[in-house]
Amino acid sequence: MARVRYVMTHRDYRVDHRLSDSDENVHSVWDNSLEPVLTVEPGEVVRFECRDATDRQVTVQTTAEEVPDISFDPVHPLTGPVAVEGAEPGDVLEVELLDLQHKGWGYTLFFPGEMELGLLPEDFDEPGLHIWDLQGDVGQFVDGIEVPLDPFPGVIGVAPGEDGEIGTLPPRSTGGNMDIKHLTAGSTLYLPVEVEGGLFSTADCHAAQGDGEVCVTGIEAPMFVTARFDVRSDKAIEQPQFETPGPFTPTGVDEPMYATSGIDPDLMEATKRAVRYMIDHLHEERGLTRGEAYMLCSAAVDLKINEVVDAPNWTVSAYLPESIFPE
Amino acid sequence: MARVRYVMTHRDYRVDHRLSDSDENVHSVWDNSLEPVLTVEPGEVVRFECRDATDRQVTVQTTAEEVPDISFDPVHPLTGPVAVEGAEPGDVLEVELLDLQHKGWGYTLFFPGEMELGLLPEDFDEPGLHIWDLQGDVGQFVDGIEVPLDPFPGVIGVAPGEDGEIGTLPPRSTGGNMDIKHLTAGSTLYLPVEVEGGLFSTADCHAAQGDGEVCVTGIEAPMFVTARFDVRSDKAIEQPQFETPGPFTPTGVDEPMYATSGIDPDLMEATKRAVRYMIDHLHEERGLTRGEAYMLCSAAVDLKINEVVDAPNWTVSAYLPESIFPE
Repeated sequence: MARVRYVMTHRDYRVDHRLSDSDENVHSVWDNSLEPVLTVEPGEVVRFECRDATDRQVTVQTTAEEVPDISFDPVHPLTGPVAVEGAEPGDVLEVELLDLQHKGWGYTLFFPGEMELGLLPEDFDEPGLHIWDLQGDVGQFVDGIEVPLDPFPGVIGVAPGEDGEIGTLPPRSTGGNMDIKHLTAGSTLYLPVEVEGGLFSTADCHAAQGDGEVCVTGIEAPMFVTARFDVRSDKAIEQPQFETPGPFTPTGVDEPMYATSGIDPDLMEATKRAVRYMIDHLHEERGLTRGEAYMLCSAAVDLKINEVVDAPNWTVSAYLPESIFPE
Repeated sequence: MARVRYVMTHRDYRVDHRLSDSDENVHSVWDNSLEPVLTVEPGEVVRFECRDATDRQVTVQTTAEEVPDISFDPVHPLTGPVAVEGAEPGDVLEVELLDLQHKGWGYTLFFPGEMELGLLPEDFDEPGLHIWDLQGDVGQFVDGIEVPLDPFPGVIGVAPGEDGEIGTLPPRSTGGNMDIKHLTAGSTLYLPVEVEGGLFSTADCHAAQGDGEVCVTGIEAPMFVTARFDVRSDKAIEQPQFETPGPFTPTGVDEPMYATSGIDPDLMEATKRAVRYMIDHLHEERGLTRGEAYMLCSAAVDLKINEVVDAPNWTVSAYLPESIFPE
């Protein structure tokens, strides 16, 4: 596959602290009463080791049949929390993502429809799984399909001001499971601080993902996340904001895409239509099974809102990069 | 502004037919009983002249105060219909977009909130208008901001199978006002044919637009649209699909973006949040008025669905290319 890689400006940095993914550094709920495992000064750099989203229930030997047995109790295993000196409620925590490093493997899976997970549970009775071999910046799918890798943390956030144990599945105003694929190395994330020290944690890294993460997983992968922290008292935000160098296409340059549009009076239904039509396309024109197509959409197909103003019908399209297919 | 332009592969073609934007070639409703103004053979190329979306109610001298007086009766003035020989219900009309040519000016406007148009009518009591000078592939906004132009037809479609006069504001399964900014020159659109001959029309060209078209207008501009037609009996689709070379960023290469995320249990509300936060950002950090910010979002900020699976909260982000600002 001919590819032009996105080249990030090299940044010099030194790692000040390392957090392994051992039990004492891992927690599975947002809870502002958790003691920080590390306290850092603004400007310091931390390298976080992150487990995969299922907390090691999936390995390179796992099969699709075993997917329904995955327990959600340990999801997500977050590394942290890290307190940042001087961060106070109302401040903004600046998180500069310096490096993301996968460990050579990952997986994409979807659950059987009765579990009501993912965008299209009604279309998939049976579970599905693909184990990816990750080599450098390419992941291997089926039929010679190669997906470029641009790793990012799916979960990244600070502790909510609300007291108690709060689940990690939905994202919140303080971040968390936002699954924003553009939070690549070279990006800077801004998070609204709600408790003293911020109490930052990260988890659920993806080696790649399409905008939407439609089957409920990207390329899930254990990973190292290296980040520099700073506290911004000059900024005030309600929900996360970020600067990103992209990439905005899988290869970081414009390239041909095939797109399917969903037109519907409900924005979520328009989204489902766009993805269903793309699954049809991948099945009929590219010979994938529907399950493979669903997973490829989740790993490499982007959802864009074309228009939300031509009442009563909205347009959402799903974009497939054609360069991922063998020539 | 340093820019690297997207370069389309040059395609050789000859224009077989021209349709001016004079009254006899323009209609303002979808209606499958309209007589075609032209019938073409598959493979033929037509150059359509298209009026602006308001049917010449806006000129380069129009002011914001006049915006509420715009009548919706002639919206949209569609050029066509063109019948394609051999196109039958169930077929797919293939429309290869060969060239789009603006006429040197355009406008972006929003209506007063009481008219309930656009994504955020509740935030804008007063109307707004910007007249753009379009020079080659750049449009001039305020404060030295330059928006790259990648023209496309906002309205492009075939006649619905449903009888009667059907409004052109909402897009439908047969296309129409889809406002898909990636339908640039070099793209190929597939439309499901519902009536004999297809009865193709196009209108409402935009010199540029952000994904979402949030204030209800892109850079609206009278334009020429050149397209080649073909009939595909080997393909069957429910709603439009397309191939596109992009661009997927304003300059066609990856570049830094500033993004604001909206996290909410309702996908439309998440979208509104993302845009509101971007308007705040453009106002507070870039010094635009809120009205200017709303229009710039509509012309140059892209909406992406980051995730629609982390129930009950979805993430939508708005992406602003930083290269549009003067250095």
